[in-house]
Formats: sequence, C-alpha cells, structure tokens
Amino acid sequence: MSFDAHGLVPVVVQQEGSGEVLMVAWANREALDLTLKTRTSWFWSRSRKELWNKGATSGNMQQMRRVLVDCDADTLVYVVDSPGPACHTGHRSCFFREVPLA
Amino acid sequence: MSFDAHGLVPVVVQQEGSGEVLMVAWANREALDLTLKTRTSWFWSRSRKELWNKGATSGNMQQMRRVLVDCDADTLVYVVDSPGPACHTGHRSCFFREVPLA
Repeated sequence: MSFDAHGLVPVVVQQEGSGEVLMVAWANREALDLTLKTRTSWFWSRSRKELWNKGATSGNMQQMRRVLVDCDADTLVYVVDSPGPACHTGHRSCFFREVPLA
Repeated sequence: MSFDAHGLVPVVVQQEGSGEVLMVAWANREALDLTLKTRTSWFWSRSRKELWNKGATSGNMQQMRRVLVDCDADTLVYVVDSPGPACHTGHRSCFFREVPLA
C-alpha cells in the first residue's frame, strides 16, 4: 500500500450486491490490518485522531465481504454488508444529496 | 463544498447501473464546475498539477449522469456512463485487485 504523507488512504465503502456507495473515510495501516483480521470496517478518524470500528457502539457493524485496492495502491474499497445506516444523519448512504448539472 | 487545505476533494467515479466503482481521483472547484457544465468528468491531477478531462485524448469521455455530495460536503461521487476502461492498465476499473481477508 502507498499511504500518503499522513499515513492514510481514502476508503470507499460500498454495499455488496446493490453497489451503493455508502461513505468515504480514511484508513491507516493499522485500520486496514484490523479490517482484514476482524472482517468489520475500521478507519482512522482525522478529526478525533483515533481508530474507529464503524457501528461498534450501535452494534450495526459493517460485515466485510471483500477489500479491493486500486492500480496505484493508494485507495481502497471495502465491499460490505451494512445492516444499518452508514450516515450519521440516519440516511443509508452519506451521498443522499445531488449537485445539479448545469 | 468543503475543499481540503489543498483545495481538493476526493471523487469516487461509479458506473451507472452496475454501480461498479471505476476509480477515485481528486477535484478542485474548477474541475467540479467544468464537470457540471460539460457533463464529462474533470479532475485535478496532483502529480501533474493540472486539470484533466478523463478520456479526452482517447475520445472515451465519461458521460456524467449525476453528481452526488456527501453529508460533510467533502467528497463527491460522479455517476457516469464510461464507454471505455477507466484504468490506465486497460482494466475497466482501477480496483481489479483484492486484498485477502486474514
């Protein structure tokens, strides 16, 4: 993996089957290792400066199906089964808003 | 939009219909504006430090269907119809490799 100057890579979280993009967050090496080992999604919170296991508090942890890496090895896709909403607003996906084309 | 310290946001490019994640790149405000206006995908190349219109050389430009923005307004999804491969390797998606779960 090719982590950036902060030791991070962006992670796209995608629902298995539907292909819906649920959220984008960041991972460092430890978050990736924990994701592969626990088969649930781990990230690095840039604001809180700590590891977080998505859904650990609510019990709605994202079940890891596959982890994909891109050609440059600087971005990941977590293909998951997400039992609950991914967004803190309660929406299933964080991408619930559209920017109108001109 | 909430651009980062470099004036950028990550962009997930997703194939309409199949939901396949094709690539992840970066956009600044100008790239986003050009994307909305031309209905093809524009990015900011961090390595070349220039705007690029994906597929403009090959003619395989990604046709913009929808632009989505996340809850924090710091990440975009370009939902496109991609006539050609998105990856410089010739693969349809840049995410053609899998990291094995532990």
